[in-house]
Amino acid sequence: MRVETVTRSEPGRHREAPAEHHVVIVGGGFGGLYAAQALRRAPVRVTLVDRRNFHLFQPLLYQIAVGGLSPGDIASPLRSVFRRSNTQVIMDHAVRIDPAERKLILRQRELIYDSLILAPGGHHSYFGKDHWETYAPGLKTIEDALDIRRRVFSSFERAELEEDLDKRRGYLTFVIVGGGPTGVELAGALGELTRTTLRDDFRNIKPAQSTILLLEGARRILPSYPEALSLKAQRSLERLGVTVVLGALVTDVGRDRVVYRSGADSRELRAGSILWAAGMQASSLGRELSRSTGAEIDRAGRVIVGGDLSVPGYPNIFVIGDLAHVRGADGTPLPGLATVAMQEGRYVARLIAARLERRSLPSFRFRHRGNLAVIGRNAAVADLGRVKFSGFPAWLIWAIVHIAYLIEFDNKVLVMIQWAWNYFTRKRGARLITETVRVRPDIPP
Amino acid sequence: MRVETVTRSEPGRHREAPAEHHVVIVGGGFGGLYAAQALRRAPVRVTLVDRRNFHLFQPLLYQIAVGGLSPGDIASPLRSVFRRSNTQVIMDHAVRIDPAERKLILRQRELIYDSLILAPGGHHSYFGKDHWETYAPGLKTIEDALDIRRRVFSSFERAELEEDLDKRRGYLTFVIVGGGPTGVELAGALGELTRTTLRDDFRNIKPAQSTILLLEGARRILPSYPEALSLKAQRSLERLGVTVVLGALVTDVGRDRVVYRSGADSRELRAGSILWAAGMQASSLGRELSRSTGAEIDRAGRVIVGGDLSVPGYPNIFVIGDLAHVRGADGTPLPGLATVAMQEGRYVARLIAARLERRSLPSFRFRHRGNLAVIGRNAAVADLGRVKFSGFPAWLIWAIVHIAYLIEFDNKVLVMIQWAWNYFTRKRGARLITETVRVRPDIPP
Repeated sequence: MRVETVTRSEPGRHREAPAEHHVVIVGGGFGGLYAAQALRRAPVRVTLVDRRNFHLFQPLLYQIAVGGLSPGDIASPLRSVFRRSNTQVIMDHAVRIDPAERKLILRQRELIYDSLILAPGGHHSYFGKDHWETYAPGLKTIEDALDIRRRVFSSFERAELEEDLDKRRGYLTFVIVGGGPTGVELAGALGELTRTTLRDDFRNIKPAQSTILLLEGARRILPSYPEALSLKAQRSLERLGVTVVLGALVTDVGRDRVVYRSGADSRELRAGSILWAAGMQASSLGRELSRSTGAEIDRAGRVIVGGDLSVPGYPNIFVIGDLAHVRGADGTPLPGLATVAMQEGRYVARLIAARLERRSLPSFRFRHRGNLAVIGRNAAVADLGRVKFSGFPAWLIWAIVHIAYLIEFDNKVLVMIQWAWNYFTRKRGARLITETVRVRPDIPP
Repeated sequence: MRVETVTRSEPGRHREAPAEHHVVIVGGGFGGLYAAQALRRAPVRVTLVDRRNFHLFQPLLYQIAVGGLSPGDIASPLRSVFRRSNTQVIMDHAVRIDPAERKLILRQRELIYDSLILAPGGHHSYFGKDHWETYAPGLKTIEDALDIRRRVFSSFERAELEEDLDKRRGYLTFVIVGGGPTGVELAGALGELTRTTLRDDFRNIKPAQSTILLLEGARRILPSYPEALSLKAQRSLERLGVTVVLGALVTDVGRDRVVYRSGADSRELRAGSILWAAGMQASSLGRELSRSTGAEIDRAGRVIVGGDLSVPGYPNIFVIGDLAHVRGADGTPLPGLATVAMQEGRYVARLIAARLERRSLPSFRFRHRGNLAVIGRNAAVADLGRVKFSGFPAWLIWAIVHIAYLIEFDNKVLVMIQWAWNYFTRKRGARLITETVRVRPDIPP
């Protein structure tokens, strides 16, 4: 079921007309997007495959969950990013790789590649308890964010109607599992929401009396940050009314109910919203690749790649982003962050271009530009290597960096001004509780 | 299951402490919202009941369907509109009215009213063929608009992947049933989308070759407008590539398939997107009210009210908006438009306030301020009574009027600037194809 324009140049077969080098990229996240962008001027044609028709600016996804931004504000249609470029966008699912035939098998067609870049990302890991997802959704897609938004705002509505004080307290209890950047930002945003935005909106309840619990298994939140910043972040969260519980292990999750162990204690809580921000599991495409190439995968399902980010033995198959296990300067694997994926995407693009000119490149080296996490309106922590900030200066850096990235490939200046406006006026225009959209079975996968 | 704060003052029972007059409003659309707003300074307390937690600016809903705006841009949280006011917002469903006890029965509680304003609106009518809705969604809610958006943009994606030219042409065929303002605006927006916004976005298809069919049963589109404007609107649509079929009656709708009769001909079409913009059916609360008060309802399910918009025999029960059958100056019922509902809401509020001061008011009289319909980027038709505009001047009036209303109770200035910016740069940032949000059974109704 091939489409002619895509498989027109099958390099191995029509040697007489020197075909253009065909780069196939799976995934339009940060890794795939930056790879395709960096190949714009290379003498190649690119096919970008994604299941969705947009790139998502995931670092601001938590803002959708708390009603600060609308989905359209942080998503860029891939077709409009790559209009008038050498990249063709295809909406499809990658199923299998056939390295011998240089074939990528999608659900609806097959693509012959000269170079293949796999950047399918990952999803939340429930450590083998996948049924917890029903009660404690993660924050990875627009749908997740809207689901969380519905839960959070419905909790206030239910509390407003509830006379039983125990149940009311339950609805006003928000538990966030995982104290990494996502969990911290979500907890901070909920703190702000309950303490300022919703302050005067209800008659029977006081949103400011909500309980916001951040459960982290390690001895400090933001474990990948310098210790001083972890402490500052915790103090900022506490000022917003968030209770941080360290060394906490979740042992059970049910409807409106979470059980966790902290030291020798086991506690059971009634909670209207339980949000999952712990653990990452790489895309199953990694196992698929391992099956066909013998590549090793780590415990999180990531593919262990070589110094040039290619699969050992397959120099034209690259893995980047959350699916790649790449060791940093200190020997530990690089974290699943947008900056890592972006740098990897650019590196692979440069490497492919260099090889076409019969040049070589040194191995990939991640440049640590800094870690940022935001906690509410004007507090953040920034670790820029030598310099470490917290409070408002860190927030300003955070805002500038994010706005700069957002407008890099999509002119979202005004969206961001709007957002900053809301931020300072403490409004939340997007706090709509929307319902399930009707299903239509014949919409493409 | 009453909540104390809401039913505290039951006027019939605690005569010793003169209780505040309690106005209960069902529906936070234009009618209910403007009634509550106009009661802000009256010596009453107001309870506004809505199933959703936001007011929707429906005149711009079609912009969500074509990816020009995000849901948050045209929705205002009711709680934030009525913070610090005499209006309490309740998220619940109205089920039944008990006029003898002055009781409104909701799903989760009961309210005792002194005055009751029913403004629950309506939904699309499929003329008894409700199963058509699966294949031809209407445009009434945010979910509808996102559903239509998904269909429209998925159609292009499917066409891009389709090799069979017949099927491809089918995916690129958009049929809009109904040539009223909604149908005309939707058709115009689709014309623009295919002719300009998406022009360079695909490789295998040319969106500009899409077929956009507007089917209208009457002899002209916009039948409620002056004839000259109907013709101008039709010509504007045709310039955008829309084919207008007049005197067309839809006889069957199926998956990707529509059959219609025009004169003696019957035509069957393959169409990837069939959108329903015909017929209105008032809320079933009308029949419910008729059962308990004996009020007459018309064929569209609307309640026939008196000159003061109250139900005959029940001077403290008012019906406004799409549920009300009110005759205009020319003897025909007023159309289901935002302006009508707004004026009715304000009138009833003034009447309630006047009665509390033992004054009376003359009967409701609708002031025709004009009709507006927009067709693409800079064409519109405006009928302002004596003056009739079309083209860009009409568009400008349309834009100013809508922006003025939008910012009246929610400061959406920057949203509107953003939107105007997109409008002129021909960008569509919000054209995301989002999937079905997971269902959670215990979310409140």
